[in-house]
Order: sequence, then structure tokens, then C-alpha cells
Amino acid sequence: MRVLGVDPGLTRCGVGVVDVAPNRTARLVHVEVLRSPADQALELRLLSIGRGLIRLLDEYRPDAFAIEQVFAQQNVPSVMGVAQISGIALHQAAERGLPVGLHTPSEVKAAVTGYGNADKRQVTTMVTRLLGLTEAPKPADAADAIAIAVCHAWRQGPARAAGSGPATPAQRAWAQAEAAAKRR
Amino acid sequence: MRVLGVDPGLTRCGVGVVDVAPNRTARLVHVEVLRSPADQALELRLLSIGRGLIRLLDEYRPDAFAIEQVFAQQNVPSVMGVAQISGIALHQAAERGLPVGLHTPSEVKAAVTGYGNADKRQVTTMVTRLLGLTEAPKPADAADAIAIAVCHAWRQGPARAAGSGPATPAQRAWAQAEAAAKRR
Repeated sequence: MRVLGVDPGLTRCGVGVVDVAPNRTARLVHVEVLRSPADQALELRLLSIGRGLIRLLDEYRPDAFAIEQVFAQQNVPSVMGVAQISGIALHQAAERGLPVGLHTPSEVKAAVTGYGNADKRQVTTMVTRLLGLTEAPKPADAADAIAIAVCHAWRQGPARAAGSGPATPAQRAWAQAEAAAKRR
Repeated sequence: MRVLGVDPGLTRCGVGVVDVAPNRTARLVHVEVLRSPADQALELRLLSIGRGLIRLLDEYRPDAFAIEQVFAQQNVPSVMGVAQISGIALHQAAERGLPVGLHTPSEVKAAVTGYGNADKRQVTTMVTRLLGLTEAPKPADAADAIAIAVCHAWRQGPARAAGSGPATPAQRAWAQAEAAAKRR
């Protein structure tokens, strides 16, 4: 399953594309951080990030779309821009008929590191290990987007559907590797 | 100048199209409230409202686009949906190269009623009078969308550019009619 994950933002919008096998192994296909200058008019910023998202959806043709869920309670100045970008991204995903997953930051962190309060550095470290990357994705928005995509695939995957952890030998092997990576 | 105004929302999204002459007289071209069911998945709701906005932009081909500005401080459950719809609308307006105006609720109320704290009923009443409608637009979201479009045209118009109120006889006549309508 190919998942395109988005860490929405107006200044930096992370987009990660991963291919995840039924045994939960994940391969990084593409990662990119879309940016728009803070001194530009809002509609032009939304246009430039929106065009980037459309380009990546059309280029990588994912089977599923995942994005971080935003809440009004996150009362920071950037939250409106985050919501506006997420609106554009969700609209484009739905226009393409993609199944959509909304995941909270805690769910994403728990999926890749094992605990929901992990910091950005821990998420980046685990993403780097789980995907066997030679160097850490930068900036943090890139790693977050990949983590969202991986989280989505794992929460949808057969291991989860079975309801009781990894079932096949390959799934068990992956779960062990994952556990070992987390201990490192 | 033809302005398409949007009162963004996920459950009800008002769209008003008005033609405003240089003498500030406004004519209603179209008003519509796009809706999406609250029990539908978020991405499908965004898709259906987004498609409605695209249809109206393409059908009425406005010269300018205006929308209510949203703030994170409006800490109500619907604010994220409002921001997501506004992101989609602004993206589509920018994609069409339209000049964009963001107006606060106070600015819109002040433009059409004369005071920034007017309630919804007062806005509806003034919109009905200013556009010479035989009945009030319903629901309030419809009147709000028209008010946003009128507000935008008036704030952009020659009267405002001149910096010192209505300049031509027609503008003065309109200003008098407007003032009379407000007194009624």
C-alpha cells in the first residue's frame, strides 16, 4: 500500500510517500517540504502549497492519504494556516477518491516510537531507523510527514485488522526488528 | 465590479454574488447556501462544499473574491471546519487569479449596518434593503455572504479611494439612501 502523508502547515508543509508491505516493512518513496514565504498574501501562500500537494498526489498516485488532525485547542497563531492547508489537502484527496485517515499527533508518535509523548527528535530517529535511511530526514516536518504515512498504513494493516498483533512469521520478524530499533 | 462573497462553514456555507456599480449601488446576482451533512466523513463534506464553490466561481466568473476572516480565538467547535472551507475557497480564488479580500465580521457589519456589533437580524434587514430585495435572504448565512461581498466592493470602491466620502452626485444620492435605510 502506498500512503501519502501530510504534516500540514503554511510556512512548512511536510509530505512523505511510503510503500508499506503487508508484513509492515516500509520503504520511503519520496519526501519533500513545501514552503511559502511568510510575507506573501495568504491566498498566494495557500495557492503555492496547494499546487505542491496536487503535484505530489498526481505524481505519486498513492492508494491512501493520511494527515495530522488539527484541533482548535491548539491555540497557536499558526493553527488557522494549518487548518486551511489541511482543508485543501483533504479536498484534493477526496477529489481523487482516496481513502483518508486523520491521525492525532499522539497516535502518530505512539505508532512509530511506542509512546504518545515522544519529542520531535525521537520521531525523527525512529523514522530514520524504521525506513533504513542513511541519514535523518530534515527538517522535522519531513520526518513527521513520513511518520503520519507509516502510522496510517500500520493502523490499517492486516496486523491491526487481526486484532491481536503480528500474525505471520514476517510480521513477527518485523515486530521484533521494530522493538529492537526502539530499544537502541 | 462583480464580487463573490463567502461566509465559510462546513454545515452551511453561504455564497453571495453581487454586481456593484461605481456609484455603490448593488444588485444581487445569485445567493446560495451550500450544505454538507454533519454525519458524513470530513473529507466528503469538504469535497461537496468545495465542488459547490468551484461550480459557483466558474458559473458567475466574479472580478473579485471576498471571505470572512477567521481567527483561532473564536474557540468554538466549528472553527476548524470554517478554516478548512476558507482554505479551499481561497485556494480556488487564487487559482483563478482573483483579487482577494479578507474581512472581519466587525468590518462586514460596520459596512452594511453602520456599526460593528450589529446582530444577524440587523445584517439581514440591511442587506434586504440595500439590494432592494422583496424578501430577506434565508438563512442568515445567505445574508452574511451577500454582506461580505458588498462590504468588499464598498471598501475597494472609488468612494473609499477618494478618501473623503462620496464624490459624485450619484454617490451622494446612494449615501443618502443608505443612511435613510439605516435610520428606518
